[in-house]
Amino acid sequence: MATVPIIGGTGALGFGLALRLAAAGEHVVVGSRDIGRANEAVSRLREVLPQASAEAAVNEEAATRGDVVLLCVPFRAQSENLTRLKPVLQPGQVLVDATVPLAAAFSGKATRLLGVPQGSAAEQAAEMVPDGVDVVSAFHTVSADRLRRLDEQLDEDVLIAGDRRAARRRVAELVLRIDGLRPVDCGPLEMARMIEGLTPLLISINRRYRTHAGVRITGLPEDAAGHWAD
Amino acid sequence: MATVPIIGGTGALGFGLALRLAAAGEHVVVGSRDIGRANEAVSRLREVLPQASAEAAVNEEAATRGDVVLLCVPFRAQSENLTRLKPVLQPGQVLVDATVPLAAAFSGKATRLLGVPQGSAAEQAAEMVPDGVDVVSAFHTVSADRLRRLDEQLDEDVLIAGDRRAARRRVAELVLRIDGLRPVDCGPLEMARMIEGLTPLLISINRRYRTHAGVRITGLPEDAAGHWAD
Repeated sequence: MATVPIIGGTGALGFGLALRLAAAGEHVVVGSRDIGRANEAVSRLREVLPQASAEAAVNEEAATRGDVVLLCVPFRAQSENLTRLKPVLQPGQVLVDATVPLAAAFSGKATRLLGVPQGSAAEQAAEMVPDGVDVVSAFHTVSADRLRRLDEQLDEDVLIAGDRRAARRRVAELVLRIDGLRPVDCGPLEMARMIEGLTPLLISINRRYRTHAGVRITGLPEDAAGHWAD
Repeated sequence: MATVPIIGGTGALGFGLALRLAAAGEHVVVGSRDIGRANEAVSRLREVLPQASAEAAVNEEAATRGDVVLLCVPFRAQSENLTRLKPVLQPGQVLVDATVPLAAAFSGKATRLLGVPQGSAAEQAAEMVPDGVDVVSAFHTVSADRLRRLDEQLDEDVLIAGDRRAARRRVAELVLRIDGLRPVDCGPLEMARMIEGLTPLLISINRRYRTHAGVRITGLPEDAAGHWAD
């Protein structure tokens, strides 16, 4: 059993991932700025999964509890969160950035992407973490709504980008713990700008088809999971 | 049988689409700047499909031959091609833009996207066509290599963006003629910037998995084709 800290674990995506990872038998640390809200989220999680191994913590405490830390906060709060996490993150940790710079963060449209000076939210995160912490971009195309409904069988991909292959692989291993999700290796962190663009695209598709769409990459070898084992 | 003009029909993507559309029984007009190269492409097409209904034309002539015109030229040549096509395109026609502003167009990496002032190659095209011509963005995630190998069963999506629903629908109808391709409605033309970003992302994935990847949107209703019939 691995311990998985989730910064912003009370939000839609963070909570959805907490549920799925707890269902897979991992120990999840649900982080929030506010310990009361974190406790409340853990209670909600236990209502669905009474046997779940889960605990609440403030974000800065949560971030110290596992090697692979999920960052699931709105883009508006990403920079502030990273400033608070910087003193506690340790070399060797992997920070998984799932934030999307939607224009909606500043009263714009959810189908538009903000221009981030570094190129993407993930590259902004990479600039802010301490030396020795790897940032990996992931979980941008997975619907929080589908994650939350545990009776929904997932069948889609998680696109992963990061500069170090070993760090991408650690995130891929976490993705593989969630039934129905397949990690796809997209290469270096600069690919994150294209991956982050998939969220507004899926939001536009969702409106047209009244659904919660995801992405699947076609044409990969049958044993695509084996890619990570090399 | 519809007549489908393909500007840049001698290039990898244009020729692949010509093959698949001819195989579906459409009449294709293979356009090129050079009539000799267009004739040669039609000969190559007939080697594979002796019964194909196909003809060669220079691009400006080809563009007058059908209601839905495919623009399959490298980004480097897009603007020059549109300048030449402007006098011949007529109101009511749909121009399907498949160009991708890869940095490779100017000796950069194929995994990087150029910044286009209008936001995307498709929006640049929309600025250059005559009034009354609709630009629709499509065919960015379909591998030219897979299209060309007619024995390969396709099973992927074509993401479609354009400001007028009626124009998107006409392109969707063309996509549906190709066995194994499903058109997905992504909404207005401004979504093209996210769709164009999928090409460099797939190129990065292709390098890692040594394949020709495509995209499938998950979670759409079973009768997603019915979306276009409304």
